[in-house]
Amino acid sequence: MNASPQTHFDVIVIGAGAVAENVADRIVQGGFTAVVVESELVGGDCSYWACMPSKTLIRSGMALRAAKRVGGAKQAVSGELDVAAVLARRNSFTHDWDDQSQVDWLDSAGIALVRGHGRLSGVKEVTVTASDGARTVLSATHAVVVCTGSDPMLPDIDGLKDAQPWTPRDATSAQTAPASLAIIGGGVVGVEMATAYVSFGTKVTLLSRSGLLQGQEDFAGELVAASLTELGVDIRIASPTKVEATADGFAITIDGEVLQAEKLLVSTGRVPRTSDIGLEVVGLTPGDWIDVDDTMKARGSDWLYAAGDVNHRALLTHQGKYQARAVGDVIVARALGNDVDDAPWGAHVATADHEAVPQVTFSEPEVASVGLTSKAARDAGYEIRVVDYELGHVAGASVQADGYTGTARMVVDEKRKVLLGVTFVGQDVSEMLQAATVAIVGEVPIDRLWHAVPAYPTMNEIWLRLLETYGRPGA
Amino acid sequence: MNASPQTHFDVIVIGAGAVAENVADRIVQGGFTAVVVESELVGGDCSYWACMPSKTLIRSGMALRAAKRVGGAKQAVSGELDVAAVLARRNSFTHDWDDQSQVDWLDSAGIALVRGHGRLSGVKEVTVTASDGARTVLSATHAVVVCTGSDPMLPDIDGLKDAQPWTPRDATSAQTAPASLAIIGGGVVGVEMATAYVSFGTKVTLLSRSGLLQGQEDFAGELVAASLTELGVDIRIASPTKVEATADGFAITIDGEVLQAEKLLVSTGRVPRTSDIGLEVVGLTPGDWIDVDDTMKARGSDWLYAAGDVNHRALLTHQGKYQARAVGDVIVARALGNDVDDAPWGAHVATADHEAVPQVTFSEPEVASVGLTSKAARDAGYEIRVVDYELGHVAGASVQADGYTGTARMVVDEKRKVLLGVTFVGQDVSEMLQAATVAIVGEVPIDRLWHAVPAYPTMNEIWLRLLETYGRPGA
Repeated sequence: MNASPQTHFDVIVIGAGAVAENVADRIVQGGFTAVVVESELVGGDCSYWACMPSKTLIRSGMALRAAKRVGGAKQAVSGELDVAAVLARRNSFTHDWDDQSQVDWLDSAGIALVRGHGRLSGVKEVTVTASDGARTVLSATHAVVVCTGSDPMLPDIDGLKDAQPWTPRDATSAQTAPASLAIIGGGVVGVEMATAYVSFGTKVTLLSRSGLLQGQEDFAGELVAASLTELGVDIRIASPTKVEATADGFAITIDGEVLQAEKLLVSTGRVPRTSDIGLEVVGLTPGDWIDVDDTMKARGSDWLYAAGDVNHRALLTHQGKYQARAVGDVIVARALGNDVDDAPWGAHVATADHEAVPQVTFSEPEVASVGLTSKAARDAGYEIRVVDYELGHVAGASVQADGYTGTARMVVDEKRKVLLGVTFVGQDVSEMLQAATVAIVGEVPIDRLWHAVPAYPTMNEIWLRLLETYGRPGA
Repeated sequence: MNASPQTHFDVIVIGAGAVAENVADRIVQGGFTAVVVESELVGGDCSYWACMPSKTLIRSGMALRAAKRVGGAKQAVSGELDVAAVLARRNSFTHDWDDQSQVDWLDSAGIALVRGHGRLSGVKEVTVTASDGARTVLSATHAVVVCTGSDPMLPDIDGLKDAQPWTPRDATSAQTAPASLAIIGGGVVGVEMATAYVSFGTKVTLLSRSGLLQGQEDFAGELVAASLTELGVDIRIASPTKVEATADGFAITIDGEVLQAEKLLVSTGRVPRTSDIGLEVVGLTPGDWIDVDDTMKARGSDWLYAAGDVNHRALLTHQGKYQARAVGDVIVARALGNDVDDAPWGAHVATADHEAVPQVTFSEPEVASVGLTSKAARDAGYEIRVVDYELGHVAGASVQADGYTGTARMVVDEKRKVLLGVTFVGQDVSEMLQAATVAIVGEVPIDRLWHAVPAYPTMNEIWLRLLETYGRPGA
């Protein structure tokens, strides 16, 4: 019963979030041993403080608004969103921040777990410091994979750090809705939390340095801004100059005016969680993103890998899991001396990270995009054609919701006659994205897409409208 | 002001439903003249008595049930569906069965319209009999395209015809919900109208000769049967032997028992609308489906074409419109002496009709399928693997609705390693179908589909789960 715990594995994974779990799972499925090292909850941000709780906080309001937008159904909706019930539902999805079910999954998958803070301490060696200070030195035969993720970045605003504002974790795990909430940052987290909290009856002020959802097609941020404004969010294009904690919350100075809010959420970007994981031991710089090749191997190393946010390729859970499958499989292949399938779109590379990353923002309305925006495509030197169509003009959308508003855009590579990017903005577009992802990743020619008939009357008829707008040569 | 109307066109289209409109539109866009001949409403069944009104009748209940399935939202739903409002909304979608907006569209598209019953009366000649008996003889330079669609088939049940039951048109255009409704036929129309009317508070009995939704994967009909039963539909696997009109409605004899219902809807299949369109003039048999090649040209003719239901390739509006684009373009190409692009997946053929037909049944739950079922694939001699996964086990589905139930199946061609068919059954799966259609039509290899990353946490993560279940060789 007192057997000393195992300290040698084929592969050590630092972190135990969704990405780390997937790396370890592929390693074990490949017939090797793996351990994950975690100082917080097994399952990570996605399970407890990001994707799952945020979408859960948003979904109830979305479903209620959808019902209110359809004649016959809206008459049955007389009450308001039950905020306590929404928060309770979110608590059930996060298992009240208890990771036992994920620990059970690790067990069932044959993955070892060491709790504590992991630091690289030598070649293929990681030293774990437990919360009680006890140290365990782990060694690996083949590889160490860093999956430590990222942390929120605090912008340089006078007094902000001392005022201790909400991080995204606080916003997704709050047990009550504040009377008022100021949000600094108009990115994905900002608009998603504005969408959630305004539906809870919170007075929301969204402060964005520039337009919302920068990096997406311009119309995405514009449609979201119009919709959030209609829901009651006060959106200001402004950069606060000073923040103070007050007896009632926060005082935020913007353009000389002082805004009061019970809570203040800051979400203005991410920094890598690499400041204290021993990167200096392998000649890398603590606090930097870890630069990797397409198999997720750190440049200059033959045993260190990094997957997920920490490699800065695409800061999205699903993309990190995609990298995880590639890195898990390539470590196994290399360990076995098998061929490495690292040509573009091979099994051991994350090719899609470069030009086919899908992203859904669960704001009101939803923004679903994949691949290159028109600007990114032009900047990359592609000869493109941009095709837009109003989603509200599609019969299926008008049935879905009275007064449906939304826009779709496809960006066509005019040389290869394939899609480079697609963006949908509107109610219920999130599940429409995968078709675009398959078309881009599959490099399906436009001529062939004409044969991919959308079922009538679904909103997917947008595909036909986009193709018709693009035009069919040679008729 | 009394100019005699034009009677000679490049192309004559018999019918003015969605398919006919699309044929004529492509002809005119190709630089030729076209006339459509219609004895009923311009826009046809889809606009007035099928797709649009049926989905509208269903959507309000769907949206309300979706809200009731999410904690926090359900507490706000205290009332019942407002049936009068649903019917009024449906009336607005069908423009109260006034086709002026469609006539305006024909005008704007440069398509001529002759109202009346069209019959082939010679080579490239159609005689139109107006409602007042006046006859107009139309002639065409290049082609006549038959787009007359199909009619409901009445099964051979004692007394049924004389009892004058509801046709699908009556069910989709009813101005009140009956207290009770018996439905004969467990196909798409049967389950969709059962879904609509049970949500209106109507006592619905669904009589099906065999399981529901025959021709789909078995689990589709099973899940729909379970769900409709839960909603209160009385489903019976039975064939009525006698039907009588009574003072209160209908008496339907099943296995000796007599079922009473205020209304009786019969939807047991379709017959071609070709019994009175002059097929005998061109050597074809009135009442038959019109057999066509992949460019929609009637076998044995060099000027007669048929698109939509009437050619019996795929009785779905979107597929008919797809055929319409091909036939419109190929008639133009042949008229100009241009190359005909009739290789598989060419612009002038409807290749997808054979093995990539998408279909959505807007029942509770929705059934979305494309391509071959496992049975159809086996019957066609493919070496296949069938991969199933429960949609409710996908995180995105559990957020979408509490207790989400649904199933997904993909059918893989093991020789080519591409998809042959995909079926989704569950709430809100209709917009997930297009990804499968693109994958099948694009013949995207399984290896490449691994790179089409589904956004987390959407229900589309089912793609990852299906691939994981299929397994990834060579890791």
